[in-house]
Amino acid sequence: MSAKKRFRPKARKPRGFEDRTGDVLRAEQHLISKASQVYDDWGFEPLQTPAFEYAEALGKFLPDEERPNEGVFALEDDDGQWMSLRYDHTAPLARFVAEHYQDLNKPYRRYQAGDVWRNEKPGPGRFRQFVQCDADTVGSASPAADAEMIALAAEVMSAVGLETGDFLVRVNDRRILDGVLETIGAADAERRMRVLRAADKLDRLGRDGVALLLGEGRKDESGDFTEGAGLDAAGIDTVLSFLDAGGGSRGDVIARLEGLVSDSEAGRAGIAALTEIDAVLSAIGVADDRAVFDPSVVRGLGYYTGPVYEAELLATAHYDDGKPIQFGSVGGGGRYDDLVSRFTGQAVPATGFSFGVSRFAAALRALGRGGLGEQRPLVVIVAAEKERSADYLSMARELRASGLRAEAFVGGGNMGKQMKYADRRGAHAAVIVGSNEREEGKVTIKDLKLGARLAANIEDNKQWREDQPAQITVDRDAWVAGVHEVVSRYK
Amino acid sequence: MSAKKRFRPKARKPRGFEDRTGDVLRAEQHLISKASQVYDDWGFEPLQTPAFEYAEALGKFLPDEERPNEGVFALEDDDGQWMSLRYDHTAPLARFVAEHYQDLNKPYRRYQAGDVWRNEKPGPGRFRQFVQCDADTVGSASPAADAEMIALAAEVMSAVGLETGDFLVRVNDRRILDGVLETIGAADAERRMRVLRAADKLDRLGRDGVALLLGEGRKDESGDFTEGAGLDAAGIDTVLSFLDAGGGSRGDVIARLEGLVSDSEAGRAGIAALTEIDAVLSAIGVADDRAVFDPSVVRGLGYYTGPVYEAELLATAHYDDGKPIQFGSVGGGGRYDDLVSRFTGQAVPATGFSFGVSRFAAALRALGRGGLGEQRPLVVIVAAEKERSADYLSMARELRASGLRAEAFVGGGNMGKQMKYADRRGAHAAVIVGSNEREEGKVTIKDLKLGARLAANIEDNKQWREDQPAQITVDRDAWVAGVHEVVSRYK
Repeated sequence: MSAKKRFRPKARKPRGFEDRTGDVLRAEQHLISKASQVYDDWGFEPLQTPAFEYAEALGKFLPDEERPNEGVFALEDDDGQWMSLRYDHTAPLARFVAEHYQDLNKPYRRYQAGDVWRNEKPGPGRFRQFVQCDADTVGSASPAADAEMIALAAEVMSAVGLETGDFLVRVNDRRILDGVLETIGAADAERRMRVLRAADKLDRLGRDGVALLLGEGRKDESGDFTEGAGLDAAGIDTVLSFLDAGGGSRGDVIARLEGLVSDSEAGRAGIAALTEIDAVLSAIGVADDRAVFDPSVVRGLGYYTGPVYEAELLATAHYDDGKPIQFGSVGGGGRYDDLVSRFTGQAVPATGFSFGVSRFAAALRALGRGGLGEQRPLVVIVAAEKERSADYLSMARELRASGLRAEAFVGGGNMGKQMKYADRRGAHAAVIVGSNEREEGKVTIKDLKLGARLAANIEDNKQWREDQPAQITVDRDAWVAGVHEVVSRYK
Repeated sequence: MSAKKRFRPKARKPRGFEDRTGDVLRAEQHLISKASQVYDDWGFEPLQTPAFEYAEALGKFLPDEERPNEGVFALEDDDGQWMSLRYDHTAPLARFVAEHYQDLNKPYRRYQAGDVWRNEKPGPGRFRQFVQCDADTVGSASPAADAEMIALAAEVMSAVGLETGDFLVRVNDRRILDGVLETIGAADAERRMRVLRAADKLDRLGRDGVALLLGEGRKDESGDFTEGAGLDAAGIDTVLSFLDAGGGSRGDVIARLEGLVSDSEAGRAGIAALTEIDAVLSAIGVADDRAVFDPSVVRGLGYYTGPVYEAELLATAHYDDGKPIQFGSVGGGGRYDDLVSRFTGQAVPATGFSFGVSRFAAALRALGRGGLGEQRPLVVIVAAEKERSADYLSMARELRASGLRAEAFVGGGNMGKQMKYADRRGAHAAVIVGSNEREEGKVTIKDLKLGARLAANIEDNKQWREDQPAQITVDRDAWVAGVHEVVSRYK
């Protein structure tokens, strides 16, 4: 077959998927590593479930419940059974716990970081594969387990370099809204889900949009109509004032909510849970400046049964033009007491928290927090004489043995091309042994960060340039120390 | 709907997939972390491509080329395009390089660890999802880049605690076999692939089985017939003596091979590559005791074009009954100069190495190497008085602040059940503050490893038992030190 006639596939990714590289990936891995360390310190055990689950085991818990078969990637196995790629780490955990229930030491506490997939319409910044990092406690009905999840979220956020004031964990209990709905006679299951979904859109649609969704329904910009929950005007007012009941200390919010749920059993159970969560959080050092109660927190997923949590970044970064970037929610979770009983029929209380790793790591990078995403200084040994690559690879090895990150250039091209390569890699130094150096027993070391340093005007240019020459030539037996000297100029 | 009538899915995984937990997972993560550190030190950059690629971009390079559509998980996107889950990290890398060729700083050196999927018939220990950890250099035709891959493989194996003698990297160049096939007049593409596939089965089928596959073909135990390469008796002899040409120093092997390829251009190119690889390996400290030349190394994948490598464990562990466990290959790779040109038509030389993480980590655990897979000592604070969970969670926090791994029990159940939980978790100590302790300002600390220690007869039982009581009670203001004392008994 001639090269011309051969089929050439296009080099392109499927829609909605991304390649992640370099410092973006370093930041994500740093975040996962820090979070895993916290979870492990708190006694959680690592778990990795497979990417595939049987479709029936995974269930249909994505927020878009109106299109229950949408949202997952599924395929038929060769024995005719349908498998789906996991859309989160919670549904697979429920399957794992149900499968091993008798042998499992309970409470079972696990952490898991990995990819999840959602078969959604891709858009700018909206991907069909992303990384979540979760911790869950299965087999405890105690609000202390929920409090621990909230404290863990705060601890991870501190561990990656955020300070008090940079973030808040917002906490609610869904049963309180159930109590409110009871008092206005609107507690049937379908209406409840419509109210929850409406409340979850408060950030995006504002009070007026939510009021429409609570009442007769709402037509969006594209003309699509979403049916409303059918509350009357008084009911809408009650729900909106419930959603507004946040602000102030956790004790303040509890006091306000007590007036709204009357003697509803569900409502009282929710308030009792928040009261105990408050006590535990206070005892373990998570004050009102890191975790607050906020009735507007709902969380979209259908499986939550009680306390729900959301981790929000308050700190803002700025675009180059000075406009603020706000990050919002970087994680969330809640209690899901019915997920294991889907399989076993047996009630198994559970609670968990999940970070959206890509989103959170991107925010941390934009905020410049925690030393995330910085590669170690790199030194490139230039291949000045092509036939001497063994020598250059050996020199790179010497540098690594001295603690530096180093490589010898193994591609093609002249010195100019190689220096450009080293520059584009962001290398701190280039090391050159050409025929002259070799014959004289010398090594030339180029300072590749000097230009940037001078441009940034960090030092008095003239004096500094004299002290820190762009290039030094040292004896072969002192060359490793010479490289360290150049690299350490920028520490 | 009543609970009885409700549909209950079975809690089970799809066939051929596994859950990984605890120390198995810790060992894998430790291995990935060590390998990534080595790759990063050597100047490689992290990359994560998505799980899905367009089927046409992925190509068909799985070993089982006779069933080209077998082996991958594929599904149709909602716009009718077929996507496949990656079966390795090399084909997606080729797509990435082709997609970004103009902007990429070359040689492009990247590492990537992550899941790959193969839609094969599952069997014992044979999974349809597993983790590979790869490093590749794209844009260098130099055998120095191949030598670097071999050295990297050896370096990773040393970094995880293997010693010289525990492993070997076996190296070959496929062009030498091409040269041999030229000398016997059997160099056409189809016959070449049949010979390669036959050679790849030497370990499994032995010389006689391979001889059949080189000649008329072979019927296996199940009666399935595999067509042979159709070589005559002399040709079969020549190929078998080529496969046997290993042994001794790298120089010895080169000398032997020179006699087999006559003046074939391909054969001479392969020998020249091995000669330069030998020179570079020797210069960078990888002697014959860590990397050897072995003509029987073929590697199944169709895309390799020159040097190929295989990392083999030589160290053996033993089953409980004393039988030796041999591990064999834990990774491999090679040069694949045509994979990027599938997209661009432009020749882009490339070489890479891949570890099979699950298999390698399992072997390291069985060998007891490198401190892999050990959880840190855990301390469990028992919930002696249920209503005091805030106190217990606060005590766990104190222990963590002092550097220990600690949790408070948040489940239900009496003291006996909680002590059993702590035992099954493998905890080193349990901490108890019941009403007595609380009223007297005391803390009881139980040594949970004592039984195991006594059973192992490590100390003179009587004396040691007196010095190391199974349980101590200390003052509340000295309790953290008391826990450290108990935990440190087993360091």
